[in-house]
Amino acid sequence: MVRAVEWVDEAGVVRLIDQTQLPSSEVYLDVSTVDALVAAIKSLAVRGAPALGAVGALGVVVAMAQGVRENWTADQLAKAVDVVRQARPTAVNLAWGVDQVWPLAADGADAVLARAKQIIAEDEAANRALSVIGADWILARTGKQKVRVVTHCNTGALATTAWGTAYGIIHELHDRGALELVYADETRPLLQGSRLTSWELTQDRIPHVVEADGAASSTILRGLVDVAIIGADRIAANGDSANKVGSVALALAAARAGIPFVVAAPSSTVDLATASGDDIEIELRDDEEVLTFHGVRTAPLGAAGFNPAFDVTPQDLISAIVTEHGVVEPDRDPDPRLLARIAG
Amino acid sequence: MVRAVEWVDEAGVVRLIDQTQLPSSEVYLDVSTVDALVAAIKSLAVRGAPALGAVGALGVVVAMAQGVRENWTADQLAKAVDVVRQARPTAVNLAWGVDQVWPLAADGADAVLARAKQIIAEDEAANRALSVIGADWILARTGKQKVRVVTHCNTGALATTAWGTAYGIIHELHDRGALELVYADETRPLLQGSRLTSWELTQDRIPHVVEADGAASSTILRGLVDVAIIGADRIAANGDSANKVGSVALALAAARAGIPFVVAAPSSTVDLATASGDDIEIELRDDEEVLTFHGVRTAPLGAAGFNPAFDVTPQDLISAIVTEHGVVEPDRDPDPRLLARIAG
Repeated sequence: MVRAVEWVDEAGVVRLIDQTQLPSSEVYLDVSTVDALVAAIKSLAVRGAPALGAVGALGVVVAMAQGVRENWTADQLAKAVDVVRQARPTAVNLAWGVDQVWPLAADGADAVLARAKQIIAEDEAANRALSVIGADWILARTGKQKVRVVTHCNTGALATTAWGTAYGIIHELHDRGALELVYADETRPLLQGSRLTSWELTQDRIPHVVEADGAASSTILRGLVDVAIIGADRIAANGDSANKVGSVALALAAARAGIPFVVAAPSSTVDLATASGDDIEIELRDDEEVLTFHGVRTAPLGAAGFNPAFDVTPQDLISAIVTEHGVVEPDRDPDPRLLARIAG
Repeated sequence: MVRAVEWVDEAGVVRLIDQTQLPSSEVYLDVSTVDALVAAIKSLAVRGAPALGAVGALGVVVAMAQGVRENWTADQLAKAVDVVRQARPTAVNLAWGVDQVWPLAADGADAVLARAKQIIAEDEAANRALSVIGADWILARTGKQKVRVVTHCNTGALATTAWGTAYGIIHELHDRGALELVYADETRPLLQGSRLTSWELTQDRIPHVVEADGAASSTILRGLVDVAIIGADRIAANGDSANKVGSVALALAAARAGIPFVVAAPSSTVDLATASGDDIEIELRDDEEVLTFHGVRTAPLGAAGFNPAFDVTPQDLISAIVTEHGVVEPDRDPDPRLLARIAG
């Protein structure tokens, strides 16, 4: 199984697979400076909420090592750590990862690294646990032996430390013989679905088709899928969930079609400090991502773009939020206190 | 104003602007054979429901001229005309255009050409009329001085014989000083929005931004737009409307946000012989369109695609269907007989 992010002890670097180059090339980046790490985060060489949690934790390790090499003051180190923490605004996991290890800095780099490695191990365990829980819930709710799934963006091993979240549920369903077909949205503008999810599905020999994002709504309305499963970058205390832009289209169609819409994420994605989706900052990314492709201009010169990276699915459109601690069903029981039960 | 399709008397050819090459190149195709015309239709060098109506009518002219040159039998001619008629299954206008002129074939090529030219003139007049009607309706319904619009695919001069349908309404609103901003969906897989609509909007100096299709739902839910306006390839007798895949996502979001969702088309798009959306055949196009982007493979080798070209918006999600004959409001009055009032 590919690892999106890992610590290489012998080299003292964070090793990332450069996801901007998939599926045509498998290129690895060995990162040993804060600037290089932040550049990798911003370019989406590494992305995916749980993977960013690991990157946040390892970013503190990188900053501390660089600080030793370059004789940073405590203030310089703190600022560098904050730059990592703020590299992308919507994903709560990045800041979460930093916050998990930064208080241990006083105990030294080894303590920080040990906690970072623990986070990575816990993330994989959480993903495997939530996948079992999610698959159980989906088969019980749909009452089907085999399900057809639609998903958006990438939530597999590439988006996490291992195994995946929404993708992990799909993988679990497949391993049980309970998966018929996956409709993978290509996920414009950066095509994480066609480039990354389809790459993982191909490697895992899971039957799937890639569709344009605009096709997802009618695929659902036409009765071609039994369940929509997505990940999350931040889940507010009331259940409103931020995920890759285009996700809420699946939720709207699923609600009309009467099929369940499932959000899967490790408990660290639940942000009880954020009351609702209205309080989630939506990252606006560079226009160029939507105006060009592979360096080829697709829109006319002079045209401007609008490029929000995420959208928010309101809790009443969500059938299940699944973490490693269990399931809540916001559309049936909107009591916001329920979220605390499955939060990290 | 650009002409997507016109008859060139002196050359005896149909002249098409090759829309697959926009916005980077303005290349014109002079077509004098049925095979070349069908290839242009299938490749989407010419596309858009009303433009295809003109192409259908002119296709009979082309077939008759080719038949004279090549000594076709009456049976050969009839078969060639039928090939044009069937070149794309979802758009009713193509068959409609053929059917408007083919009965005149017995009167000779001049009679057919005269009727084809009349269709082109009537289409432009219909577009201008429905644009006034649609703009009036939108300003009355929203109660706004200036509106922000979201649209999908291309419905401008390139999609019609001149002026445009949904685009025509946008243009009319702009000319009245009642347009604030257009959100133009890029419209994957073939990017008619970023390549064609943005090109027309740029030429017409209409303020706009290009967004990924997946962004449209949240743009609407976040209150950034006042009205969604799209075209149609076929409107069933009950008001269900087929349009470029991705359209129904806008309708679902508009319904939740409480903003009007407007379908604009010449009356020839209303197909009273089709009872409902369930009876509309949805064209499945080549997988490659979604697995590649501008000729670059984006999905891994071995991955399959699912590429429906259209979707159907159910009538209860449609606030207004506008033709040159008036407006019906399916979401408020679902009586299917109303459609007859604005049909062609």
